[in-house]
Amino acid sequence: LLGRAPTVGDFTEAELVAGIQAQLPPAPDWLVVGIGDDAGVVEPERNRLEVLSVDALVEGVHFDRRLTPPDAVGHRALAVNLSDLAAMGARPRLALLSLALPPDLTRSDFDAMVSGLGALAVRHRLHLVGGNLTRSSGPLMIDVTVVGTCKRRQALTRRGARPGDALYVTGSIGAAAAGLQMLKLAETNRGDGSRREACVRRYLYPEPRVRMGLLLARNRAASACMDLSDGLADAVHGIAEASGVGAAIDADALPIEAGAREWFETRGDDAVIEAITLGDDYELAFAAPPRWSGRLRAASRHGDAPLTKIGVCTKGPGVVLRRAAGDTLMPRGYKHFR
Amino acid sequence: LLGRAPTVGDFTEAELVAGIQAQLPPAPDWLVVGIGDDAGVVEPERNRLEVLSVDALVEGVHFDRRLTPPDAVGHRALAVNLSDLAAMGARPRLALLSLALPPDLTRSDFDAMVSGLGALAVRHRLHLVGGNLTRSSGPLMIDVTVVGTCKRRQALTRRGARPGDALYVTGSIGAAAAGLQMLKLAETNRGDGSRREACVRRYLYPEPRVRMGLLLARNRAASACMDLSDGLADAVHGIAEASGVGAAIDADALPIEAGAREWFETRGDDAVIEAITLGDDYELAFAAPPRWSGRLRAASRHGDAPLTKIGVCTKGPGVVLRRAAGDTLMPRGYKHFR
Repeated sequence: LLGRAPTVGDFTEAELVAGIQAQLPPAPDWLVVGIGDDAGVVEPERNRLEVLSVDALVEGVHFDRRLTPPDAVGHRALAVNLSDLAAMGARPRLALLSLALPPDLTRSDFDAMVSGLGALAVRHRLHLVGGNLTRSSGPLMIDVTVVGTCKRRQALTRRGARPGDALYVTGSIGAAAAGLQMLKLAETNRGDGSRREACVRRYLYPEPRVRMGLLLARNRAASACMDLSDGLADAVHGIAEASGVGAAIDADALPIEAGAREWFETRGDDAVIEAITLGDDYELAFAAPPRWSGRLRAASRHGDAPLTKIGVCTKGPGVVLRRAAGDTLMPRGYKHFR
Repeated sequence: LLGRAPTVGDFTEAELVAGIQAQLPPAPDWLVVGIGDDAGVVEPERNRLEVLSVDALVEGVHFDRRLTPPDAVGHRALAVNLSDLAAMGARPRLALLSLALPPDLTRSDFDAMVSGLGALAVRHRLHLVGGNLTRSSGPLMIDVTVVGTCKRRQALTRRGARPGDALYVTGSIGAAAAGLQMLKLAETNRGDGSRREACVRRYLYPEPRVRMGLLLARNRAASACMDLSDGLADAVHGIAEASGVGAAIDADALPIEAGAREWFETRGDDAVIEAITLGDDYELAFAAPPRWSGRLRAASRHGDAPLTKIGVCTKGPGVVLRRAAGDTLMPRGYKHFR
C-alpha cells in the first residue's frame, strides 16, 4: 500500500542481508563461520597459495543504471574480479561483497543484482563468506573482494615474458565496447540484429576466462598473463613493461569480433584502434615461448575459448602495431584518473 | 602553476598507486606477488584458520570531510575492520584497499588519508597486498578488506554465550558518540577542554581492541564476543540473539566515559541511553562463564584495556536494562537502512 515499488530504504540491513543469504547455495565444508558474525572464518586449502583481488563498480563511472539491467550489474561486478583471478591462473574460492546502496534503489532491482552475482558465483563454485551493506549518499557502488588458490610456482604474473615469446589473446576483442556504444545510442535494433545483440550481451554479461587461466597455469603454458579489463593495448603494454620487453602486434591477426568490426567501420572509426584501446573485454593476453607450443596445445584442447597468436615479444623498447600501411607505436589506451 | 592545490584528478591511477606503495613497509616473506599485478598472491599461514571481513566508509553517511581530517578518515576505515578481527580473536595479517575518489579530492588529502591508514596498519603488522582505485561520481568511499588468522577452535563467535555467563565490556563507552556531537556543534572548546578533546580523539582515532581480542581467544576466556561498532545495546542484543539467551545489564555498572557523561547530561540527555545506543566505540562486549574467571584474569593482566562486568546472560527472552528506577527493555539502537 505504499503507492510505489518497495525500495531498499524500506528494509533494515538485517532484512537485506537475509535476502542475500536466501540465495546462497549450501555452505562448503571449509566454511567455519559464514555471514552473520563479525567476520567470516574459513579453513585454508592445503598446499596452495592464495590469490586476492578487489574491484569496484561505481554507478556513473563504470555503468549506467538506465542501460544496464540490475542482474548484469551484479554479474559484471563479480566477472571483473574473476577475470583478475583468471589472469593469475587461480581457481576461485570465496568472495566478500560490499554494497553502498542509494535508498531509492528498488528492492526488486536489489534482488536481481544479487541474483546476477550469485548465479555467476555458483557457476564458478565461489562462495560468499561475508560482506557489508551500507547506504550510499550518492551512486550505487559494488565492491567485490575475491580469493582464489593456485599451486606454488604456478601463479601467472605479468613479468615472465622474454624476447621471442609469442603473444596470444583468448576469444575475440572489441565486442563489449561496441555493445556499450550500441546501448548508449539505443541502436541495438538497426543493422544486423543478431550480431549486435551478441556485442551487447558481451558487454552486459562478460564471461571471465577462468578455465583458460587455470589450464595455462597448470600446463605451465604461459610465461606472462594479464586480463583485458582496460583493453588489449593496455594488457600488451602491461606485460611488456612488467617483463622488461617490447612487443610487436600484427593488426591483421587480431580476432576482432565481426559485429564490432562492422559497427566501428559503419561509424567511420578505425576498427583496429577502437578494438584494442577500448576496455571491458575480459579476455586474457599472454606470452609463451615457441618451445612451449605443446603445452599450449594441451591447454587449448580443454579450454573454453579459441586462442589467437597476435604478435611477438621483442627486445624493445616499445610496443609496435604492424599494419599494412606501416608500423606505428601502439596507442596506450592511457587512462587518466579524471 | 595550477593556481590551485593539485587534486587526485591531476594524476594517473598509476601515479596514485605509486604514492600508496611508497608508504608501505618492506614486504613480508609470505607475500609472493604484491601490488602491481592482476591480483596479490600470498603464502597462507600454517595451521591457522583465516578470518575475513570487509567494511566501507562512505562520505556523507559515515563521515563528513569537513569534520574529519583526512588522516582520521584513513585511520577509521582500517580501525572498523580491525575491530571486526578483534571481535573474532584474530591476529591481523593483510588488507586490500578499494578507494572511490571524487576527482576534486586534493592530492595532499589523499596522501594524508593513505598515511593515516598506513600508520595503523604498521602498528598492527598488517600488510597491504592489493587494492583498487577508481573515480567516484559522488562521495568519497573507502572499502577495506582485512584477513587475519586464528588457531583452530579459538575463533570468538557471537553464539557461545549461556545463561549465567557474565557480560563484560572493554574500555569505556559513549566517548566517540559524544565526540562526534562536539565536532558537529563545533563546541570542543567549551566546558572542560581536555575531557572534550579526549572524546573527539576517541571518535577520530578509535583504537581497535586487537590485543584484548587475541588474549581472550588464546586464553579461551570468552564464550561469545562482538564489537561495539553499532553501540553496546546492539552488541548485547547481537550476542543474546546469536546465542539464544537473554541478558540483564546493570546501568550503574556501565563504564561511561566521564567526558561523555558530562556532555550528555549538560545537554539534558539520558547519558546511559545515549552511551549504549550510539555507535563508533569499537570496544568489545563478551560473555564468560564465572568458572573461567581465572582465564579472564590472565587475559586481563596482559591486555591493553580495563574490563568491566556490566551484567549477566539470562534464560531470556529479551534484554533487560536494570536501573534504579526499575527494569526496562533495553533499546535496540535499531538501525533502519534509510
